[in-house]
Amino acid sequence: MVNFNKIAITSRLKDKQTVEIASMCCEILSNQNLNILLSEHFKSLISTTKKAKIASDRVISNNSDLIICIGGDGTMLSSARKFSRSKAPLLGINLGKVGFLTDVQPEKITSSLNEILKGIFVKDNRFFLESSINKKRKKLIALNEVVIHSGAVAQMIEYEVFIDNNFVYSQKSDGLIINSPTGSTAYSLSGGGPIIHPSMSSITLLPILPHSLSSSPLVIPSDSLIEIVIGPNKNKSVLSIDSHDKVILKKGDIVKINKSDQGVELIHPKDHDFYDACRKKLGWSRSL
Amino acid sequence: MVNFNKIAITSRLKDKQTVEIASMCCEILSNQNLNILLSEHFKSLISTTKKAKIASDRVISNNSDLIICIGGDGTMLSSARKFSRSKAPLLGINLGKVGFLTDVQPEKITSSLNEILKGIFVKDNRFFLESSINKKRKKLIALNEVVIHSGAVAQMIEYEVFIDNNFVYSQKSDGLIINSPTGSTAYSLSGGGPIIHPSMSSITLLPILPHSLSSSPLVIPSDSLIEIVIGPNKNKSVLSIDSHDKVILKKGDIVKINKSDQGVELIHPKDHDFYDACRKKLGWSRSL
Amino acid sequence: MVNFNKIAITSRLKDKQTVEIASMCCEILSNQNLNILLSEHFKSLISTTKKAKIASDRVISNNSDLIICIGGDGTMLSSARKFSRSKAPLLGINLGKVGFLTDVQPEKITSSLNEILKGIFVKDNRFFLESSINKKRKKLIALNEVVIHSGAVAQMIEYEVFIDNNFVYSQKSDGLIINSPTGSTAYSLSGGGPIIHPSMSSITLLPILPHSLSSSPLVIPSDSLIEIVIGPNKNKSVLSIDSHDKVILKKGDIVKINKSDQGVELIHPKDHDFYDACRKKLGWSRSL
Amino acid sequence: MVNFNKIAITSRLKDKQTVEIASMCCEILSNQNLNILLSEHFKSLISTTKKAKIASDRVISNNSDLIICIGGDGTMLSSARKFSRSKAPLLGINLGKVGFLTDVQPEKITSSLNEILKGIFVKDNRFFLESSINKKRKKLIALNEVVIHSGAVAQMIEYEVFIDNNFVYSQKSDGLIINSPTGSTAYSLSGGGPIIHPSMSSITLLPILPHSLSSSPLVIPSDSLIEIVIGPNKNKSVLSIDSHDKVILKKGDIVKINKSDQGVELIHPKDHDFYDACRKKLGWSRSL
Repeated sequence: MVNFNKIAITSRLKDKQTVEIASMCCEILSNQNLNILLSEHFKSLISTTKKAKIASDRVISNNSDLIICIGGDGTMLSSARKFSRSKAPLLGINLGKVGFLTDVQPEKITSSLNEILKGIFVKDNRFFLESSINKKRKKLIALNEVVIHSGAVAQMIEYEVFIDNNFVYSQKSDGLIINSPTGSTAYSLSGGGPIIHPSMSSITLLPILPHSLSSSPLVIPSDSLIEIVIGPNKNKSVLSIDSHDKVILKKGDIVKINKSDQGVELIHPKDHDFYDACRKKLGWSRSL
Repeated sequence: MVNFNKIAITSRLKDKQTVEIASMCCEILSNQNLNILLSEHFKSLISTTKKAKIASDRVISNNSDLIICIGGDGTMLSSARKFSRSKAPLLGINLGKVGFLTDVQPEKITSSLNEILKGIFVKDNRFFLESSINKKRKKLIALNEVVIHSGAVAQMIEYEVFIDNNFVYSQKSDGLIINSPTGSTAYSLSGGGPIIHPSMSSITLLPILPHSLSSSPLVIPSDSLIEIVIGPNKNKSVLSIDSHDKVILKKGDIVKINKSDQGVELIHPKDHDFYDACRKKLGWSRSL
Repeated sequence: MVNFNKIAITSRLKDKQTVEIASMCCEILSNQNLNILLSEHFKSLISTTKKAKIASDRVISNNSDLIICIGGDGTMLSSARKFSRSKAPLLGINLGKVGFLTDVQPEKITSSLNEILKGIFVKDNRFFLESSINKKRKKLIALNEVVIHSGAVAQMIEYEVFIDNNFVYSQKSDGLIINSPTGSTAYSLSGGGPIIHPSMSSITLLPILPHSLSSSPLVIPSDSLIEIVIGPNKNKSVLSIDSHDKVILKKGDIVKINKSDQGVELIHPKDHDFYDACRKKLGWSRSL
Repeated sequence: MVNFNKIAITSRLKDKQTVEIASMCCEILSNQNLNILLSEHFKSLISTTKKAKIASDRVISNNSDLIICIGGDGTMLSSARKFSRSKAPLLGINLGKVGFLTDVQPEKITSSLNEILKGIFVKDNRFFLESSINKKRKKLIALNEVVIHSGAVAQMIEYEVFIDNNFVYSQKSDGLIINSPTGSTAYSLSGGGPIIHPSMSSITLLPILPHSLSSSPLVIPSDSLIEIVIGPNKNKSVLSIDSHDKVILKKGDIVKINKSDQGVELIHPKDHDFYDACRKKLGWSRSL
């Protein structure tokens, strides 16, 4: 039996709508006499809410039983990375359009949240991709994808790909996307990549505008070790993490990418349906 | 420790080259004093080979410790289906070009076969897709793919897809390919499908010339139950199993597709490399 | 100055809505005291309409100044072929969704038709593709596309393509689409073909599920002579004309395809916009 | 009858092989007593060559009857732009692999060049795309393509496209390629664009990794005026000319692109074959 006692409310947005939704959450949680951790954004709510405290990201990460994120898929992405060491599951309350990660609609907050607090929900575990450069200890964490790219316009890069120490291919292209199943409905999709069911344990490799005759996406087990050796390119290359962090790469750099031990547990209302989100967001229901 | 005592030699070809290679295999196996089961094709070899018997497919299936198939990927495909109930692994000796399933090259038979008999080899388990129509008991077994297609030229069919009882989409297209990882380098590849590593437990759904705005390939866990409901099409539809068997479908028919309990174990020489086969067959090494 | 005196009304549908729209057209044309040629379908309207006659397709073809077609793009396609020898332009009145060929919406018939009768309209000339087999005189006429295809499920055909007597490629695929600009928004689009502006003088060649490393669509001048030599295929091949007529092909048959001298003139209301139709029908306005 | 009297020899390379080939050209031209204009690169050849002069690009542009370029397609591309105002045709002598623009192979220089000097050759006119930004007079000249792109990694831009003053679409993507037929076998091809026969008068628009449901390449007449309005993007956008020149764009900038009045005449040996180059470079001859 789940027992959500300390519940955090967070967002990277602080507009009026977001604060209103945070306020609604506070009211529902207060009615159940639960402890609330509010991120800095929402300090205006502290005076009107019982058992609420302002908490830093670190405190939220270490002390929550559940983290409620208000925003779209982008907010969830950044929250997932920020709280990647937390054991608390994430629940997304969606502003605007249906998302793949956030599926509580604002108009259903009360009923959805009350059900979830009773333990009625669907769990959905997602894994991170972990990247490191050469022998550096620092690991970069991506939920969607890692992209290696020339930082320039219409500029090719060259690289070699190894998987589990086997040479796979050397390739010239505008870039290479390495994505988790979570990322399969994001950037990878624009490049013609396959949609991978979120429960799959796989990693997809997808070249961007490859200068080769054949370049199907390649789907491999998630316990593979991917190594990418940067070739002798005229220009620098760039490693991009969830289109968020950037690291400059130079000739001969080796980027190692593998599934992280860390993951994130998403929580969805019980009627959550991945295929339904696909139909709505990807136009599956529309014929020519 | 493996112990290949009874070894079958089979093919669907009976040309001179195939018989010569079968003869070479007989000699190698005889030298090790092993029992040989020859399929009908090779009865000409019986007189010159010690401890050899002609055996029916049924006897081969039930009594072999190893089945050697001579031919290309097509021969392996048909042998895999034919001996799908056998517990013996399959070893492919390749005529002609490198294949994805058959990778002992004729010029290396002696060394490869002797190593394999010593127990030095790579195992490679592949699963079958199992299809049934409506409530019929009969299961159709495919190693590569199941295709639902209008039997006619440039003729659209309409169908609904359900996965694990969830509605996925209704679609108009020239057809739908449902393939195993093994099939990902076959017909599916021509249609833009992703290459799936053979060790993955997944099934790919790929529409052929879809009349819809969006139609990325969809990769789902192999323990999913796929159900396809045939729509009110002007023409009949056809279910095709490994481009081999055909069944006519009519409006309202429900085709169920799932991973079969049966599988096939392939055996490869120890230097087997899936990515190497991809590079050679798919032109990965060639740039524009 | 145009002078539409004899105006035909035709369709291949005879449902209630179609007859009602034909009746509205009759009224508008009668009000202007014009001669009306009604196809058989609409004989029920003869008693209530001044200066109306029932006319065969041949009479319509030879004697009309304007042919009004009621239906969707499919009806326009078949009318264009049927009246391909007529000098009269075609005007499409659209039932249902916006079409690429038919763009008078039923609710605007009166205003659109009156403007067109005054000479205010946009002309849009489309050309036919003409096919012949071996040395046969018979020419087959397609407005959208010619497809050469195996008549069977997931069954490859082999063929050689020559353009203006130059060898282009030999190819194995499920089929080959040869389409006019008009056909570029039809079947070809599902296969990943480019959209070609209707005013272009070009022909597109697009293989269907090709078994080759590279297979971009090829766009050539419309005055090219395309010759396709059918290879030694196990199964018969089929030539399909606008998904309507079929001809069985055998090994060694040569299909010649070129732009026909005949064409069809479409007439559109003055606010006609090709790109607007694309936006509506092809989802250009929708982002992921 | 052609009369090549003053012939220039140029390159952007100055390695040993290039100078050797220039020297061979000098010998052939001297044997025919022709006037030779050598670009700076080749001043070492002046002492050993009759009737040779060193000439600046401007002099070459104004005074040549024929310009011989030594190098690959990249050299031809830059020469074509550099001598875009010259009336002299360009002849490419190819170092390395077969090119689309340069097709005299080094081992055939003597025979090919002598034939061409006799007037036996194939003419091949290519047009430039001309770009200008806002109301600026400066025109940027591209032979292959214009690309509008975010200068950053995996970073979307937003823009609106108008053709001949008609709104076409607003789009979010990683970039937009606008290419001539010449460019259809270059960058555009990697992005899935169609191959356009060099004799076509058309321009292709091809989004790069579009965030939309549908995004077929669009082929329009070359006399169209394309206007692209840069949207409110977080980051700057970049206009790239033949992957060579770059201009930074900002929100609201309007890029106008149209066919230039200037063109370049390529000269090929009489056995030149566009489809042959496609087969060799694009792997058309290789099946899976």
